[in-house]
Amino acid sequence: KQRELAIAKRSEDYPQWYQDVVRFGELAEPAKVVKGCMVIKPHGYAVWEKIQRDLDGRFKDTGHRNAYFPLLVPMSFITKEAEHVEGFAPELAVVTQAGGVELEEPYAIRPTSETIIGHFFAKWIDSHRDLPLLINQWANVMRWELRTRMFLRTTEFLWQEGHTAHASHDEAEAEVLRMLNVYGDFAEQVLAMPVIRGTKTATERFAGAVDTKCIEAFMQDGKALQAGTSHDLGQNFGRAFDVKFQAESGELEYVWQTSWGVSTRLVGGVVMTHSDDEGLVLPPRVAPIHAAIIPIFRNDEQKAEVMVAAERIKAALSEIDISPPRARYRDFLEVALDDRDMRPGAKFYDWERRGVPMRIEIGPKDLEKGQVCLKMRVDTEAVSGKQFLPEAEFLASARQRLLDYQDALLALARARMAANTVTLDTWEEFEQTFAGDSSKFAWCHWDGTAETEAAIKDKTKVTIRCVPLPGYGPAPEPGVCIYSGKPSAQRVLMAKAY
Amino acid sequence: KQRELAIAKRSEDYPQWYQDVVRFGELAEPAKVVKGCMVIKPHGYAVWEKIQRDLDGRFKDTGHRNAYFPLLVPMSFITKEAEHVEGFAPELAVVTQAGGVELEEPYAIRPTSETIIGHFFAKWIDSHRDLPLLINQWANVMRWELRTRMFLRTTEFLWQEGHTAHASHDEAEAEVLRMLNVYGDFAEQVLAMPVIRGTKTATERFAGAVDTKCIEAFMQDGKALQAGTSHDLGQNFGRAFDVKFQAESGELEYVWQTSWGVSTRLVGGVVMTHSDDEGLVLPPRVAPIHAAIIPIFRNDEQKAEVMVAAERIKAALSEIDISPPRARYRDFLEVALDDRDMRPGAKFYDWERRGVPMRIEIGPKDLEKGQVCLKMRVDTEAVSGKQFLPEAEFLASARQRLLDYQDALLALARARMAANTVTLDTWEEFEQTFAGDSSKFAWCHWDGTAETEAAIKDKTKVTIRCVPLPGYGPAPEPGVCIYSGKPSAQRVLMAKAY
Ligand SMILES: [Zn+2]
Ligand SMILES: [Zn+2]
Repeated sequence: KQRELAIAKRSEDYPQWYQDVVRFGELAEPAKVVKGCMVIKPHGYAVWEKIQRDLDGRFKDTGHRNAYFPLLVPMSFITKEAEHVEGFAPELAVVTQAGGVELEEPYAIRPTSETIIGHFFAKWIDSHRDLPLLINQWANVMRWELRTRMFLRTTEFLWQEGHTAHASHDEAEAEVLRMLNVYGDFAEQVLAMPVIRGTKTATERFAGAVDTKCIEAFMQDGKALQAGTSHDLGQNFGRAFDVKFQAESGELEYVWQTSWGVSTRLVGGVVMTHSDDEGLVLPPRVAPIHAAIIPIFRNDEQKAEVMVAAERIKAALSEIDISPPRARYRDFLEVALDDRDMRPGAKFYDWERRGVPMRIEIGPKDLEKGQVCLKMRVDTEAVSGKQFLPEAEFLASARQRLLDYQDALLALARARMAANTVTLDTWEEFEQTFAGDSSKFAWCHWDGTAETEAAIKDKTKVTIRCVPLPGYGPAPEPGVCIYSGKPSAQRVLMAKAY
Repeated sequence: KQRELAIAKRSEDYPQWYQDVVRFGELAEPAKVVKGCMVIKPHGYAVWEKIQRDLDGRFKDTGHRNAYFPLLVPMSFITKEAEHVEGFAPELAVVTQAGGVELEEPYAIRPTSETIIGHFFAKWIDSHRDLPLLINQWANVMRWELRTRMFLRTTEFLWQEGHTAHASHDEAEAEVLRMLNVYGDFAEQVLAMPVIRGTKTATERFAGAVDTKCIEAFMQDGKALQAGTSHDLGQNFGRAFDVKFQAESGELEYVWQTSWGVSTRLVGGVVMTHSDDEGLVLPPRVAPIHAAIIPIFRNDEQKAEVMVAAERIKAALSEIDISPPRARYRDFLEVALDDRDMRPGAKFYDWERRGVPMRIEIGPKDLEKGQVCLKMRVDTEAVSGKQFLPEAEFLASARQRLLDYQDALLALARARMAANTVTLDTWEEFEQTFAGDSSKFAWCHWDGTAETEAAIKDKTKVTIRCVPLPGYGPAPEPGVCIYSGKPSAQRVLMAKAY
């Protein structure tokens, strides 16, 4: 029932462009009948599955094990950690009836699982020999948000939440950083999405954490997307849920906890990192379909001949596995052979909008020459436009071509981020940079106070995305705050954000 | 905090045995703080993950695509299909508040998703060209049950639900059977769990279906476990949600739908199919850990030497992949090298209770002889007790040994089912067979009426598990009903059930 409408241009109406790319890319649609929820359609869910399986392997490689805790959390649990309840209480969906009766104590649908998992950690942990306890959960969670946008903010979303307990703060801090780097490496290697790794200000911390680290990705409108967070919970939840262990010294101590998560929001991040005015662009490592073969013919006789070659190429491509070495999954190429009764141009358009990396045309002339016509979804420095390749050469190089395309998309995204990253030193420049709806990644000095942070946000909607980790921003050098003029130790990343 | 308690014997207290195997096998524990829910612990969740990834490949190989629909279902949706609401309304958990306000229309947490998916099918389907629409969802669902038992019946459980729409009843019926056979093949090939494939009686049908097919597995206490169902929904939900398509004839018709599902209940089925009085037994294809290596030593010098060999064997085993050809996953052996400061006997006991297929002991004498000592978790006809094997020979044969063990567990399970399957012809035999708490798989004639079915259930707690599909029970031959003496066309499977 999808009407043939054009995709809005990024430069003209960015929010509409995003919606159009998601819709015409068949990634998702708003549920409407359930407030703020979306239906993740097969093409979009397949992207999420590819995110899941790769991340999951990285969690296992770092010693984590998956488990599953109840969806429902007793309301009394949520209130045990003071800052946590303040952060999440306003967004809860509450079950008050079940099995035909009114419940004595209502349940919240988990907005996150620190509390219920804290309860079980208290049962499971006795001694330092039980630590570290390294758990991850893949789950749905619910936060009743007022303003929602597909993938970026929905009342229900899918995510993973890591929850770990440690015998010392040092160990917990190392875990926070380890998982932040897992996220950062994954974002770059799999999503081809460059990110800045840093530390949140106190204002932007997770409710209940003593420190929150994050990866911030650059979207094409200059805004930042918080793409993953890793929290140092200190002993806050240990105290709230009485999670104690006997240390080697023999004393009972509260455990040190961490939690970390990424969600279906990442799909929105991929969309806004790579897509263009023709629609969705997907890196091969998360593309549900890697290649579309379009047979070209004028009559049945030609069609019969062309289809034989098309089937042969499809079969050969389908045997190619692009998974990384020692991955826990195989990633055979998914190939669509499009023999629908439509004009080739309409088919090109269709597969473009779904972000398929490779388009292969085969017609009678190509058959004669033993060649195929290859077009990558996005022109890159190394490869642009149509290429005519001998069939055997194409098949032998298809795997490497996709991996090169993956790298090229990352390079393009890095170049866009670099071109839109500025170093600002005056409030005038700042106001110009962020005038109206515009945004960039701006490295600015900040005096370190919440007051200045709030004033900047209030005046410009710009937030401090993070204080960069070493190597992810300008080297620390003293300066003066862009807003207050007070002393500053280093520049921080400022931008508008999703 | 797990106390050292013995596992109950199957012959003495079967329900307690099941609980003990689940608990000491570290598969799950009752959540207690959330009514009827469990926590799936890492060892249990890993079994579920292995179930998921293999089944998921089978769904994809048969043309299905995964998607995700909202957790919450408007209450008005549930009531649209008359039989469906009758079946599910008493078990709903209901969200009445969200974001701090009372909702105008409450939402049910999905007990199953026919209704909300029906709503979207109506939006997505226009023409016969949109059919068949073949969707699957991996999700949590909630049914507020009064009596719960870990994995077998919990208020929240994890499952997959296939939902498909077709242009004709014939096509829908073929789909129902196709997916039933996917389940049956999976149960036997992966879970090593033999099943009877059949058709439910009208009484036992899914609420809203015109026909329900099922796989019924034999548990060691003689009871049946309904392990998977595949439903022909006819046009019931098509009518309820106005899902129409333009047929090739040009006329508007309601679609024909199916749905089918298996759940975390399968983990309980695996437990009760294979485990013994020593605890959990797992087939290699779903075992989270395939081999435990126990170093044997009397002093530090011996330990140092033995650990070198143990690490070498672990590394070699970890490179072995036992996944089936062309699977979408790799299944490298997971090996635990148990260097804890404990007596070897206690370690043996520990890994036995977790169902690890292979135990490998290496001591100084083995090192001298260049051998390992291998013990499979369960003695089979081909292999029993400890085996002493040259290290190289062991490594070269480890993969095949696990696959043979997988086959042997299936053979053992088949033999137990055969030994406990009877053909009954008189009510006296029937009452004896099902006296007290006892049960077998009994092939009996039935007159085909709901009255007789109800009377049998009322008197003995025995239900008609299914009318067998050809090849899964005695060949149809006329007879007289075991209860009423009236004419019967074929024998059906009767048993007590979980
Ligand atoms: Zn956060
Ligand atoms: Zn059913």
